Amino acid sequence: MSPTRTLTASVPDRWIADGIGEVPGVDVVVWDVSGPAPEDVADRIEAVVLPYARGYDGELIRALPHLSTVLTTTTGFDGVAEKVGDGPAIVTAAGVHAAATAELAVALVLASLRGIDAAARDQEREQWRPQRRRSLADRRVLLVGVGGIGEQIARRLDPFEVTLTRVASRARTDERGAVHGTDELVELAADHDVLIAITPLSPDTHHLVDARVLAALPDDALVVNVGRGAVVDTEALTAEVTAGRLHAALDVVDPEPLPAGHPLWSAPNALITPHVGGNASAFEPRIVEHLRRTLGQLARGEEPPTQVRAAAR
Amino acid sequence: MSPTRTLTASVPDRWIADGIGEVPGVDVVVWDVSGPAPEDVADRIEAVVLPYARGYDGELIRALPHLSTVLTTTTGFDGVAEKVGDGPAIVTAAGVHAAATAELAVALVLASLRGIDAAARDQEREQWRPQRRRSLADRRVLLVGVGGIGEQIARRLDPFEVTLTRVASRARTDERGAVHGTDELVELAADHDVLIAITPLSPDTHHLVDARVLAALPDDALVVNVGRGAVVDTEALTAEVTAGRLHAALDVVDPEPLPAGHPLWSAPNALITPHVGGNASAFEPRIVEHLRRTLGQLARGEEPPTQVRAAAR
Repeated sequence: MSPTRTLTASVPDRWIADGIGEVPGVDVVVWDVSGPAPEDVADRIEAVVLPYARGYDGELIRALPHLSTVLTTTTGFDGVAEKVGDGPAIVTAAGVHAAATAELAVALVLASLRGIDAAARDQEREQWRPQRRRSLADRRVLLVGVGGIGEQIARRLDPFEVTLTRVASRARTDERGAVHGTDELVELAADHDVLIAITPLSPDTHHLVDARVLAALPDDALVVNVGRGAVVDTEALTAEVTAGRLHAALDVVDPEPLPAGHPLWSAPNALITPHVGGNASAFEPRIVEHLRRTLGQLARGEEPPTQVRAAAR
Repeated sequence: MSPTRTLTASVPDRWIADGIGEVPGVDVVVWDVSGPAPEDVADRIEAVVLPYARGYDGELIRALPHLSTVLTTTTGFDGVAEKVGDGPAIVTAAGVHAAATAELAVALVLASLRGIDAAARDQEREQWRPQRRRSLADRRVLLVGVGGIGEQIARRLDPFEVTLTRVASRARTDERGAVHGTDELVELAADHDVLIAITPLSPDTHHLVDARVLAALPDDALVVNVGRGAVVDTEALTAEVTAGRLHAALDVVDPEPLPAGHPLWSAPNALITPHVGGNASAFEPRIVEHLRRTLGQLARGEEPPTQVRAAAR
């Protein structure tokens, strides 16, 4: 690659462009993919950074004549290939959302166990109604997913006096100790008070937390999902929650948004946040640093470590 | 002390008596201090364990002819001497509530920053309303209080990518590093996003977090109180919160319960929990273990480590 060559990359927001600043070999333009790319740059854009927590039009991306790479601003990339087509490489923002999502997972666990949501509802009615709640201390936590965010959840749970068991696709041992395989999930569920799902969505993880896993959980167990909605069988979970047997704290549901009138909206033992795991101030400095590094790698012809699909030849 | 002597101690709940079981030299009876002590034991009770999170009648305790020790089930003992009189020793349950209270402090911080309370209100209206929030990651946290609970809060905050500054009555250095004195509080407040108060209530700490400290905090800072309500000047805090300049997440307020119609009830940037810091399942095994150990010490004539006032001679 000639040192005089320049990679034109679009980013969806001005603040991202400003944050990235100058990167050798990269020309950053702002395009939010909601309307056609600016005429003066459409025929030279090679890399497109997708918007975060907003929709985008895949046809507009496929229309670019020199597209080589699509960069997500999310950790997951389910659905991206379907929208942008077979041509471009796909590079994710794995790592960028770990801090924000892991802390939301802990926030949901603590809020549900300690009744913060119930207190917020009581507050609207000016009700001072102390109740003894289950503490996180002494709980047995089953963490399903040991990727970047799973590891950050584990680290944040460490000082809370819990017993932590970790599950991944296959049993193995890492620096934290034993990781169980998903084939043990039903058996493990029976001995845990809190299940936290943080796995990517794939054919292997679709409804991984299904009716059998849920039925195996003890009464009053809490199911937390901060990964992708369809990793949990929403219908089966809804049945357990509306029966009053399980609690749920969900940042992701299936489908999203949760439809009007869905029973989870009104279940007092369900806490719903609107898919905001990564949508926090931690995102901003981390996405800027990630894109600065990754666009530099692309400009130098290097494969970014978070590339999950190569470009078609 | 003769080995055949037996100390009669009352505990407020049957489950506590059952949990304590047999302790050499201790006869445990159940009395909740809401009505006169059972006639068959009133003239031999030497130690009274106060009820937790319920009222009790100090006159009934002062009427006991052989009272030597009052044991709180709380960490704080503000107000106890006034109720039980000058005679008995006072022994607290310091340590017992550290896990539950520290996790509630982190829960309040996370819930307020990440909008869990707003989500719970939105849920009642079936509103899916994602908003970018401040993460705990990257926040500068000012922890006011470095006792047992303060230490447990610090430990739990460790993995959350925060900058932690600690404040105690006097500047010193401990195994975690520098502790600042309360004389620096106004100056320190200016550089912090979250202030967590966890100090006992005493003449020195009454309104320690006053209008000057609050005014020094930057816009949008969060004030969390899990210690005692009167450590914070509630009127000054209310003014800052209703003006929309500061956020508050309070497990303790002044007075308690928060009066009907108080502006904090309806402030969207205030989160109120009804003094439940220690009121969680973690309490049960820990109070039982604490009382088993402490009553044994009293029976052997030893001074318990959590004694805060000796008996009058």
